[in-house]
Amino acid sequence: MVADDLDAIVVTSPPNVRYFSGFASQFWESPTRPWFVIIPRSGGALAVVPDIGAPAFEATWIDKVRSWPAPRPDDDGVSLMADTLLGLPRTSGRIGWEMGSETIIRMPIKDFDTLRSQVPGLEFVDGSPAIWSLRMVKSALEIGHLRHICQLASHAFEALPGQLQFGDSELTAARKLSAELIERGADSIPFIAACSGPGGYDQIIVGSRERPLDNGDILFMDLGALYDGYSCDFDRNFAFGPLSNEAAQAHDAVWQATEAGINAARPGATTTDLFKAMASVLEASGSKGLNVGRLGHGLGIQLTEPPSNRLGDDTPLVPGMVMTIEPGMEYASGKMIVHEENVVITEDGCELLTRRAPREMPVIGG
Amino acid sequence: MVADDLDAIVVTSPPNVRYFSGFASQFWESPTRPWFVIIPRSGGALAVVPDIGAPAFEATWIDKVRSWPAPRPDDDGVSLMADTLLGLPRTSGRIGWEMGSETIIRMPIKDFDTLRSQVPGLEFVDGSPAIWSLRMVKSALEIGHLRHICQLASHAFEALPGQLQFGDSELTAARKLSAELIERGADSIPFIAACSGPGGYDQIIVGSRERPLDNGDILFMDLGALYDGYSCDFDRNFAFGPLSNEAAQAHDAVWQATEAGINAARPGATTTDLFKAMASVLEASGSKGLNVGRLGHGLGIQLTEPPSNRLGDDTPLVPGMVMTIEPGMEYASGKMIVHEENVVITEDGCELLTRRAPREMPVIGG
Repeated sequence: MVADDLDAIVVTSPPNVRYFSGFASQFWESPTRPWFVIIPRSGGALAVVPDIGAPAFEATWIDKVRSWPAPRPDDDGVSLMADTLLGLPRTSGRIGWEMGSETIIRMPIKDFDTLRSQVPGLEFVDGSPAIWSLRMVKSALEIGHLRHICQLASHAFEALPGQLQFGDSELTAARKLSAELIERGADSIPFIAACSGPGGYDQIIVGSRERPLDNGDILFMDLGALYDGYSCDFDRNFAFGPLSNEAAQAHDAVWQATEAGINAARPGATTTDLFKAMASVLEASGSKGLNVGRLGHGLGIQLTEPPSNRLGDDTPLVPGMVMTIEPGMEYASGKMIVHEENVVITEDGCELLTRRAPREMPVIGG
Repeated sequence: MVADDLDAIVVTSPPNVRYFSGFASQFWESPTRPWFVIIPRSGGALAVVPDIGAPAFEATWIDKVRSWPAPRPDDDGVSLMADTLLGLPRTSGRIGWEMGSETIIRMPIKDFDTLRSQVPGLEFVDGSPAIWSLRMVKSALEIGHLRHICQLASHAFEALPGQLQFGDSELTAARKLSAELIERGADSIPFIAACSGPGGYDQIIVGSRERPLDNGDILFMDLGALYDGYSCDFDRNFAFGPLSNEAAQAHDAVWQATEAGINAARPGATTTDLFKAMASVLEASGSKGLNVGRLGHGLGIQLTEPPSNRLGDDTPLVPGMVMTIEPGMEYASGKMIVHEENVVITEDGCELLTRRAPREMPVIGG
């Protein structure tokens, strides 16, 4: 905050409210009420929240909790926030909000505009660089949580070939994996995508569908499961019947690109170096491109967090950063193979948090 | 749009993008990239989306898909959106965005401010009244989906007393219910809260915790499970050992308030009438209040949607609206009982979508 000359940071979004206050709830699924946590440069943290949440915030480390009888659409927290912000100790008058990359302000923007006009002398600026600089480097406790969910999910993925069979749909495959994850102790599964196609898949973000899996298909499953608020994000591929030579070669190239990414993940390297290490293997293997825009990213409370492994990102890797190593390639028209592992940067390299995918794609029998 | 004099509506948030485009994905868990769907007053719908999503949007009914190589933090969709909006047929110059109650703009607000400054002659106004007026009344297809998930979840709740035992934690109870829901065909469970306490619970939004359930406890479980994008939202209560007279009386009062709410839910009544029908029963039964701020709300793609059953909301109920009937009361200090059922307004009353909670709270044996 001192570096960015901020008097306070205000957060409104689920991951940042949880990160700064410890308030853990799935009640965010209801869009009705805004919630505010204020971290001043000096003095104790404040929460300005709906009455329904006041007891829960009083149980956190937050010093002062103010609340209003929400929902009250005419003034849902606006006047109470104006009063609270105007009462903060003032140095620069700059209040950092979640205005920049990979952040959102979780309140009606009409109300945000009103609030901006009701705090003379205060300027609302982008607080996201300060927020991300904190969140990007994980504590030992956070890394422990991430290791736990990555291991749990790795075991669930490894059990899946014994549970899948010809004729299962993408949806059935997703349900089988979900059941295994819940059984093994995952808290919830905000993200699970099962995508398939003959010899490969053409996209990795829409699924799961009723499409039945048959001989020659490749099934891709990508997963973000939570343990105590922390997410894994990695995928696995499964072959229904033997792979074609073409698909087997592409799979091996992407597996080797993942090795290159893991080997490049160390302090002193940048996210751009990570990208280049993977991209050079993919290009040498005849990649026809990838529409994902990057080859991995930060990971933590959210499925994806800054930084991005891409040209021009240039974020230096430091110990405690948790990253996905996520190369992929289109090897024929409409046929992609994507791999992903999760690592934490250590003092002298990285530790694999997931259990490494097998070099040969698991084959489901007919 | 004509009534609000809008040239177009732009949506960016998961529920509205899905509602208007049919694009169904859990990829929203990644906050990295913004997505835009534009519904012009005249002419075909447009999508302005990251490259990774272009194939999926081309498979929807959207007429024209424009995309850019995201992530590109320096210009993530901003210049492409400016160009697209400036190219729309213009009448009023007013573009409706998700700026009002119960909506958010899912893009960095810094970029939204930049975009606002790059479209001379266009004014960004609140499009949420137009959006909610459409979403509030459900089609037969939507009602079918809601009925399906409500029935599925009702059966899962009914199976739970046979699965719970003394010593289970709140977390274990939530996992047992989750497993049953997945087994029965729920797609995912974005919201599940298990809250408990001796003789009642003191809040209903934070949970589940490791707290073990013991004789004298009441366990409250609230649930938002999804089927093909549509959510149920109702709760159930379970007693560990026999209820105290005080708790049994409160439970019966809230059960009767639910009856009153269901009976009041019919075309011609308003959300305020619904509130009053429930509140009069609760007050007559010695309610010490409730910090929730309303006694139910709309339901659909989201766990909670407008309108709210509260004084002053005054929304007329019309056939096709799906509502939660959600009375609750604090009957002693720190002890609440909350009930909830889901209904759809019909031509001459309402249809219960959930299976009615038993009048006597189910008792788990020791």
